[in-house]
Amino acid sequence: MSDIKPIALDAMGGDHAPHEIIGGAVHAVRERGLSVVLVGPPRVLYESLADHGATKEIPIVRAEEALAMDEGALASLRRPRSSIAIACHLVRQGNASAVVSAGSTAGIVATGRLRLKGQQGVLRPAIAVALPTRPNPALLLDAGANAEVKPEMLLQFAHLGAAYAETAYGIGKPRVALLTIGSEAEKGNKLVRRAHELLLASPSLHFVGNVEGYDLLTGAADVIVTDGFTGNVALKTIEGSVRYAFGELRHAIGDSRMAKLGAILQRSTLRELNRRLDAEAYGGAVLLGLNGTVVIAHGSSKAAGVSAACQLAADLARGGIVTRVGERVATTHRTHRLW
Amino acid sequence: MSDIKPIALDAMGGDHAPHEIIGGAVHAVRERGLSVVLVGPPRVLYESLADHGATKEIPIVRAEEALAMDEGALASLRRPRSSIAIACHLVRQGNASAVVSAGSTAGIVATGRLRLKGQQGVLRPAIAVALPTRPNPALLLDAGANAEVKPEMLLQFAHLGAAYAETAYGIGKPRVALLTIGSEAEKGNKLVRRAHELLLASPSLHFVGNVEGYDLLTGAADVIVTDGFTGNVALKTIEGSVRYAFGELRHAIGDSRMAKLGAILQRSTLRELNRRLDAEAYGGAVLLGLNGTVVIAHGSSKAAGVSAACQLAADLARGGIVTRVGERVATTHRTHRLW
Repeated sequence: MSDIKPIALDAMGGDHAPHEIIGGAVHAVRERGLSVVLVGPPRVLYESLADHGATKEIPIVRAEEALAMDEGALASLRRPRSSIAIACHLVRQGNASAVVSAGSTAGIVATGRLRLKGQQGVLRPAIAVALPTRPNPALLLDAGANAEVKPEMLLQFAHLGAAYAETAYGIGKPRVALLTIGSEAEKGNKLVRRAHELLLASPSLHFVGNVEGYDLLTGAADVIVTDGFTGNVALKTIEGSVRYAFGELRHAIGDSRMAKLGAILQRSTLRELNRRLDAEAYGGAVLLGLNGTVVIAHGSSKAAGVSAACQLAADLARGGIVTRVGERVATTHRTHRLW
Repeated sequence: MSDIKPIALDAMGGDHAPHEIIGGAVHAVRERGLSVVLVGPPRVLYESLADHGATKEIPIVRAEEALAMDEGALASLRRPRSSIAIACHLVRQGNASAVVSAGSTAGIVATGRLRLKGQQGVLRPAIAVALPTRPNPALLLDAGANAEVKPEMLLQFAHLGAAYAETAYGIGKPRVALLTIGSEAEKGNKLVRRAHELLLASPSLHFVGNVEGYDLLTGAADVIVTDGFTGNVALKTIEGSVRYAFGELRHAIGDSRMAKLGAILQRSTLRELNRRLDAEAYGGAVLLGLNGTVVIAHGSSKAAGVSAACQLAADLARGGIVTRVGERVATTHRTHRLW
């Protein structure tokens, strides 16, 4: 049915684990035709699968431990048999094509780096998040894996993002932009000025120049590159701002004499809009640059979000994202020698 | 009428200069009872004031040159007689209490630093922007004056912002927060971890800890401290995200069968809401830490925005912001010696 190995799904990561994770697995298998392996405590998972009548459709791989949502990077060292560690191990052994987890981002990143290791030539793995622009999402990276970076890493992030855009959205020449505080080349800090030079000098990238915070949601670029500190602040600022704008709107509607009309509108259109802006619909963030694809679903993911994350993982694996990243990153080393 | 010297208003800065600037001056004088001096080419200004019948109410100080909106920091060196330079000069001489300009931010910052000089003990002036939270605006700084900073500067930005919140909003103990990428003290990069320590150790600040991008618009703090790169990206991301959210809303309303109800709602509430979110209503950004207050009105300001900026400048001058900043910054040096 599928031309790739199954997706290794961490059954114990996320606010609604394992119940909604298992629901997501069942949905991914039945509605999307994907192949999924659940990783976690067999007894619990078997019983839950039995409730869905799905014990024959979805295999279980044993992992009795799990990383808690509030455990950070260090816990991944202490728990070599956690569900996320075992999921990574399946990919490493060639028994799964990608990992999906709704666990804590810090735990997933640390475990992924430890168990899957960075791809040859990749300076640092990075988190790519799909922003809800049209017609295709814009990929922002790094969204938080690396709080301190060097210009050469920003160049590589551009290649990681370009490989993602090619693979997931079929974009031939993804437009790459650099996030900074002015559109001119000399604006920003030392880091972005040097990164700008490296991006300009890279023939295998379609670099369209600097963008500012205004431009994150306008569709001005397919890939927007930044350090993990700025990227994480920007991502959370988007979420906070959109929530704020709708809160203010509800407030304004509630205050007006049109409260009733407003309530109707709210039900019919705001709900739909909220859904569109919901990170779940996009399948989550992707940790790129490791020897295997890791999709980080939102911690609050329910079944639909988990299923979408499995789809994204399968699409990236089927498109050979790891190979594409490897090819692209090799060109950054050639570029380096010229400098 | 006023207990302070007049506001020196740069008549030549801004997209709608001088017409809307002069309209703003007339509004500030007649409707707000402020005292204003216009700085620019006398002939042009006199004729425009005559149209308002206001030649007797508003004095003019000659400046034949002006910085163009697209001129950067270097132009301020080349034009010592520009309208913004002369406005700063009036404050320096004690003939005006504060400067208001809707010119280019880079030009205003460079001219202010050159002509007014930094206050004693201030490492770097910073730009504070008022975010539209309730009940009081939250002050974000630095919003773009310093793309590279040191932890000690972030500590001082906290004091600059606290002085602003005390002076403009009468907040007794402004809550100060540090913008980073996790609420725990150890999160973030080296810069914010060290700044966190300095803020914690400062007895004259009410430091409430780390905040993330989500929290910028929730009113979780009165003053939010960050470097000028992150602050500028965050500020522009807010603007872009709010615009995006309303754009999506209009799209959703237009798509639905409730288009007509939506259009009514749009007129009555969205317009009001847009106004509330409009930077103009808050009087603009403030450049803090110089020997004189400089209010940077939005480049697209019309008369109402210019008038509000004059009000903010007058409030800050009347409240003795420069003295308050001086007192607060002196404590940062005492703190330093202890370390």
